[in-house]
Amino acid sequence: MTGFADRASEFRPSPVRTVFETALDPAVVSLAGGNPDLSLLPGGSIADLASSLLADRGPEILQYGSGAGTESLRALVVELMARRGSAITQAEVQPLAGSQAGLDLVTKLYCNPRDVVLAEGPTYVGALGVFGSYEVEVRHVDIDREGLDPDEVARALDQLAAEGRRVPFLYTVPTHQNPTGVTLPAERRRALVEVCASRGVLVVEDDPYGMLGFDRSAAAAPTLHSLDPENVIHLGSASKIFSPGLRVGWAVAPAQVRARMQIAAEAVLIHPSVLSQELTVAWLGSPQWPVVLDETIALYRERAEAATAALAAHLGDRAEWTEPSGGFFTWVRFPGTELGDILRRGIAEGVVIVPGAACYADGRSSDAVRVAYSGVSPERIDEGIRRLTAAVR
Amino acid sequence: MTGFADRASEFRPSPVRTVFETALDPAVVSLAGGNPDLSLLPGGSIADLASSLLADRGPEILQYGSGAGTESLRALVVELMARRGSAITQAEVQPLAGSQAGLDLVTKLYCNPRDVVLAEGPTYVGALGVFGSYEVEVRHVDIDREGLDPDEVARALDQLAAEGRRVPFLYTVPTHQNPTGVTLPAERRRALVEVCASRGVLVVEDDPYGMLGFDRSAAAAPTLHSLDPENVIHLGSASKIFSPGLRVGWAVAPAQVRARMQIAAEAVLIHPSVLSQELTVAWLGSPQWPVVLDETIALYRERAEAATAALAAHLGDRAEWTEPSGGFFTWVRFPGTELGDILRRGIAEGVVIVPGAACYADGRSSDAVRVAYSGVSPERIDEGIRRLTAAVR
Repeated sequence: MTGFADRASEFRPSPVRTVFETALDPAVVSLAGGNPDLSLLPGGSIADLASSLLADRGPEILQYGSGAGTESLRALVVELMARRGSAITQAEVQPLAGSQAGLDLVTKLYCNPRDVVLAEGPTYVGALGVFGSYEVEVRHVDIDREGLDPDEVARALDQLAAEGRRVPFLYTVPTHQNPTGVTLPAERRRALVEVCASRGVLVVEDDPYGMLGFDRSAAAAPTLHSLDPENVIHLGSASKIFSPGLRVGWAVAPAQVRARMQIAAEAVLIHPSVLSQELTVAWLGSPQWPVVLDETIALYRERAEAATAALAAHLGDRAEWTEPSGGFFTWVRFPGTELGDILRRGIAEGVVIVPGAACYADGRSSDAVRVAYSGVSPERIDEGIRRLTAAVR
Repeated sequence: MTGFADRASEFRPSPVRTVFETALDPAVVSLAGGNPDLSLLPGGSIADLASSLLADRGPEILQYGSGAGTESLRALVVELMARRGSAITQAEVQPLAGSQAGLDLVTKLYCNPRDVVLAEGPTYVGALGVFGSYEVEVRHVDIDREGLDPDEVARALDQLAAEGRRVPFLYTVPTHQNPTGVTLPAERRRALVEVCASRGVLVVEDDPYGMLGFDRSAAAAPTLHSLDPENVIHLGSASKIFSPGLRVGWAVAPAQVRARMQIAAEAVLIHPSVLSQELTVAWLGSPQWPVVLDETIALYRERAEAATAALAAHLGDRAEWTEPSGGFFTWVRFPGTELGDILRRGIAEGVVIVPGAACYADGRSSDAVRVAYSGVSPERIDEGIRRLTAAVR
């Protein structure tokens, strides 16, 4: 049979994946996957919404849709972005089958093989798979408890320019970051978009957790997009505020770029599921949604507190961890400890986490792990951290 | 802002697309889009199926699913393939968000820029967009009323080998072809898979119309996959036998290749919509489905007959056309006539079709058009052909 293309060497099963599959035993506490908690969703109401959509508009919902997405989803995204401080029009909204598809598209549109993408260190594991699939090199800029330092980003970009490398964009999750849970403050946001714009480098703002902040009294940091709409592509998602199973996300980009994204997206998918788009609009437009979302955020906050309390109780000063501002994750470092194959040792103790090394493209070792508390009860979180402690010892 | 990647030049709006958008006027007869007719689908029953799925299994349906698709969809595909003569296991089935996604994946996995893909002349317009997005060159092998001539394929492959070109695969729609409606006979199928296998060239069999044959008494031609499962990747779809809006399709490939496809697919989409997959399984597993499918095929057959009758009545011996064996299309040639900008002239007369030239990658002019009868009543088909006649005159 024909041999694979050069890029296919990037599509190998990872050791992490292989181990995950052996860790589906319910006795194992999974602090690995970034799953939303769906227990507060009213199943009956959502079933009724889907039933009404299909009964009233079946021939339209089931027929081919537009590559530009549904008008109602574009309108919803305009509203959601307005709440985040970005005034946009529907011509800037590209509905997609999940925001991962948006990351795939911007990489496809902007990156040649051997280009360099700048990303946080550590960054979202799934982004590394996308960059690899386009044979793009990733350089990390280490983050602190306030995310990226714009001066460090400037230094990295200048260094890459001196090396003659092409850097199409910076990839960042500035709000309740994956995997650390930290949020970039407003001041750094302004400096960051300025650093990138002045060097002709696009910013890709991945924002799945932006609406999941714990501190309701604090003013949310403005989106990077709101600070420089001409040089920031914003990726949004319904996966963490409603349902990941439906695969609904979107990109917000200057109208000309969005039009190009649509053509590239159509070659892959024709269009995203119309039923998924319309069911998302129906639920996010219902009066129940904000209530359920608030309750669910309270649940995540309680779990974040359970995680940090368990870390303090079991690990004390042997580890340090981030205090999540929102979202699903805390990042736990064990300074001076050789973690080695922590994933496999954790599973032996009955807990599964994402090893820090998986959040870097360059194969470096890491003294950290990502703990996802979003889908686990406080009691199980405590038990999971206890087992993690045993695995590290 | 950053410049685009080299491949992005492939993502330009096509003239065909631009014209289509101006042709949404309901007074225009559209013989352009390959839309299934959904009028016989019982909207209430499908609404009930969706409602039951969400009410009974909401937390599972709405949560992240597996990149390997749902177990029930894989089982359904095993059954569907058995009816087509292919004995496979679930390890060979990769569920996807439409079969277009499968074509994107095989191109991503097998093709380097400047590789050559062999395809029918004419071929499916949407496939050309995929090949372009990977900077792959397409060479056409002209087809006759029985599809590809295996000897011509052999000659083309030998010629390309002599030119030193890498040819990862042959792309073909062997059954009720898009855009011609012709079907490759069993004898040619056997010769075709042999020609490709002996030259180390993979076969990609795109089969969205395979279950939509008009002649129920004739034995269906075996799938290419059933003739050489190790060297044929088969792409299937629920779009023409149920709903395109849900975006459900699949690839069937040797287990090792399928595993690689899953990893590449996850980087783009994580997984296809769980609700779409399960609703497809629920409908195709219901006792109503085969009845509705049979009635819908009868509708397509009636429309195919209306199209050929209208062509005979309005065009007589000024044109020649294929007699579709099934599916959605007939291919109408006007030998010796310069069609020029037939798309725009058709719209001026109130009919929209796909100009033949759009079905070739090499920009050649064509004396043909594709007529899609699947979504249009016999009366409108007759009126559309009358207008087409005026446009050609």
